[in-house]
Amino acid sequence: MTFDPSVLPDVSGLSVGILGGTGPQGRGLAYRWARAGQAVRIGSRTRERGEAAAAELAGMPHVPDGVVTGGDNEYACAADVVLVAVPWDGHADTLRALAPVLAGRIVVDCVNPLGFDKQGAFALPVPEGSAAQQALALLPGSRVCAAFHHVSAVLLADPEVTEVDLDVLVLGDDRDAAAVVQALAMRIPGMRGVWAGRLRNAGQVEAFTANLIAINRRYKAHAGIRVTDV
Amino acid sequence: MTFDPSVLPDVSGLSVGILGGTGPQGRGLAYRWARAGQAVRIGSRTRERGEAAAAELAGMPHVPDGVVTGGDNEYACAADVVLVAVPWDGHADTLRALAPVLAGRIVVDCVNPLGFDKQGAFALPVPEGSAAQQALALLPGSRVCAAFHHVSAVLLADPEVTEVDLDVLVLGDDRDAAAVVQALAMRIPGMRGVWAGRLRNAGQVEAFTANLIAINRRYKAHAGIRVTDV
Repeated sequence: MTFDPSVLPDVSGLSVGILGGTGPQGRGLAYRWARAGQAVRIGSRTRERGEAAAAELAGMPHVPDGVVTGGDNEYACAADVVLVAVPWDGHADTLRALAPVLAGRIVVDCVNPLGFDKQGAFALPVPEGSAAQQALALLPGSRVCAAFHHVSAVLLADPEVTEVDLDVLVLGDDRDAAAVVQALAMRIPGMRGVWAGRLRNAGQVEAFTANLIAINRRYKAHAGIRVTDV
Repeated sequence: MTFDPSVLPDVSGLSVGILGGTGPQGRGLAYRWARAGQAVRIGSRTRERGEAAAAELAGMPHVPDGVVTGGDNEYACAADVVLVAVPWDGHADTLRALAPVLAGRIVVDCVNPLGFDKQGAFALPVPEGSAAQQALALLPGSRVCAAFHHVSAVLLADPEVTEVDLDVLVLGDDRDAAAVVQALAMRIPGMRGVWAGRLRNAGQVEAFTANLIAINRRYKAHAGIRVTDV
């Protein structure tokens, strides 16, 4: 079996909530899904900020009417799939507080626990092994996956970019949930969603973002990765 | 600056030593360099095994006469660039013993510290952070880089494969040494050598091999990666 997108589920009718929809990664992915016609629910710490972010996204080029709405974090959690795109230093507290409303939902963690110094980015140690495994520990009632770590927020947010050329590595122990996330990646033109292992192997995928940052600095690029032979 | 191979040094006259030249990764890379006309010195724990491995490689298709020789590990260390492709469980002891003869040389670590169980491969914890950083600690007199973690030994060893389609991520704090390693990657048709950060960011590149193994199992592939936008 090689990569076959036809085996993935139809996710066009699913809603996607964004926790951290005002940050660059969350906002960029929200824009791409909205542009693809997906129902997007932007969340933020306050209802006002979430509504403002949604209004701004709704006014961006190529976004169909009515697909983006916004509110507080609980509002975003009332979606079929919820993307966690909050800063790493608020990750645990945010998820702990939202665990009851995230129960039963597919939760996609895209958080990269990184530190920065004069020599650039580096991976921070995470007691649970990765942000995704921390989410798994805090959300025992949710179907936790990890994906979208390597997408360039700059490319996502640029309306002139019509295709985002990279593979999204999807990690998860729940294969059906991972397939939904793969299909959501493929709603964005140019992206493929490739299953890339269990959550215990999420840490290096998160940390690899530090390498992409080094590559970007060296080659003046917005680097991502493609998996070859798949 | 985007990726520009013309800035890399000419390495066609350099010799490459292989520590662990009888294992699949070392043997496969030795074959590719020999095939490209690079002088290759195969090392093994005993002189006889190293000589036998070299004789076998010299007889493979498309290998020019006289480019592959073999001997013990010290023999391999008398090369301009030395690839460390030994099993992880012998990594520290091998390098500690060879530190004097590796002094001043470019040492390229391609070792992936992985464990395996019924659920597949996973990253082993390394006190120094990575195999590459362990090498750096044990070889203070060498110019340590890390690269070639993700190349498929199956593809490397297959004489029918004319191009090995992937990017080799090269890590190193010594930029000139890293450029030599990048150029050595580019001696193998299909490969690019892309600088991907300092050695402190090698751990996730090594560990990512566990994800490629998961991808290979799922998609029946020999997966590697390409860096996009570079």
